Amino acid sequence: MEMDLRNEGWQSFYRILSGAVVPRPIAWVSTVSGKGVVNLAPYSFFNLVCAQPPHLLWCPGRLGRDGRTKDSYENARQTGQFVVNFVTESLAEQMNFTSAEVESDIDEFELAGLTAAPCKIVSAPRVAESPINLECEVTQIVDVSTQPGGGSVVIGRVVYAHVQDDVLADGKLRTEVYRPIGRAGGRDYVRLTDTFSMNRPLVVK
Amino acid sequence: MEMDLRNEGWQSFYRILSGAVVPRPIAWVSTVSGKGVVNLAPYSFFNLVCAQPPHLLWCPGRLGRDGRTKDSYENARQTGQFVVNFVTESLAEQMNFTSAEVESDIDEFELAGLTAAPCKIVSAPRVAESPINLECEVTQIVDVSTQPGGGSVVIGRVVYAHVQDDVLADGKLRTEVYRPIGRAGGRDYVRLTDTFSMNRPLVVK
Repeated sequence: MEMDLRNEGWQSFYRILSGAVVPRPIAWVSTVSGKGVVNLAPYSFFNLVCAQPPHLLWCPGRLGRDGRTKDSYENARQTGQFVVNFVTESLAEQMNFTSAEVESDIDEFELAGLTAAPCKIVSAPRVAESPINLECEVTQIVDVSTQPGGGSVVIGRVVYAHVQDDVLADGKLRTEVYRPIGRAGGRDYVRLTDTFSMNRPLVVK
Repeated sequence: MEMDLRNEGWQSFYRILSGAVVPRPIAWVSTVSGKGVVNLAPYSFFNLVCAQPPHLLWCPGRLGRDGRTKDSYENARQTGQFVVNFVTESLAEQMNFTSAEVESDIDEFELAGLTAAPCKIVSAPRVAESPINLECEVTQIVDVSTQPGGGSVVIGRVVYAHVQDDVLADGKLRTEVYRPIGRAGGRDYVRLTDTFSMNRPLVVK
């Protein structure tokens, strides 16, 4: 199948695209509005940018036929802050529950029965049940497309990290304790159980 | 464990960060230089941005103690084009082979024994053995950090798609035929076999 996406046809292409770019990590983003309303929502268009200084990004989409922005996006833009909480197998259902499209004045922590713990630097709370929380400051927002189905790139610097001791050993994460999940195609999620290792090849001169 | 990353300590934090942000999808990026030298390299700091129009991004890092740029980055910047090829279980070893740090004049297609097929719009070749190739045009490059360990965000619009017929059914990807792999912590990769489904919750009003 060949598809020219310059002029048309990209409406039907999303299902293929989201099935191709897998598995995706999940950022469970907590923010707070200027009025103090807390928001929590999962984003699988998420990844690291670089290590030094540590930066990451997530891409909130535009909703509905009018292409309106998501609360997380507005909050991050207004406050310049957000928290990335990490999702484990045992938190999967609560994470999924916070993906419901609810009114802006709803606190998804309460909705999903989660504990909002205070952060050190960022005003938004973090998910106490999550083993890893990264407090971030927005460094740049790129509005890639503002039309319906469009989206933005929110780039943030990690300024403070909370990591539960039991998921750490020798300065590394213990995947078998952390038990993260990722996003696959459609309604599917993947566990990190069926893994294999490859050594990085030597430098070829 | 709590870690303030504003001033120091982020050198040792990368192992935790790259173990936390998992599983990551893999973009096998092919580019060509202004002089016509082809490059192919995998990037797991990669994801979708939005559907309409379809955009994706990948984040090339800075190499070595001098923070020099990667060939893929330079080529994408100079030509304004790149191709994302997708990695399957059967292509894992060849993908890994192209992650070796080699001289700029080395063609990784030849090095890894891969077939360079022509693209429709983009000058760089695509990996013929890969079931999905997305031809992309650079829309923006954000240099987040230019120091050693830093990185950039290369944002591109998907302009042309090649998808092998056998991985498609009813306009969706057949994961069991596609058999993608993702990046996990350390030297680990994950197959998309241990999956589960969750329905998106209804809108709460």
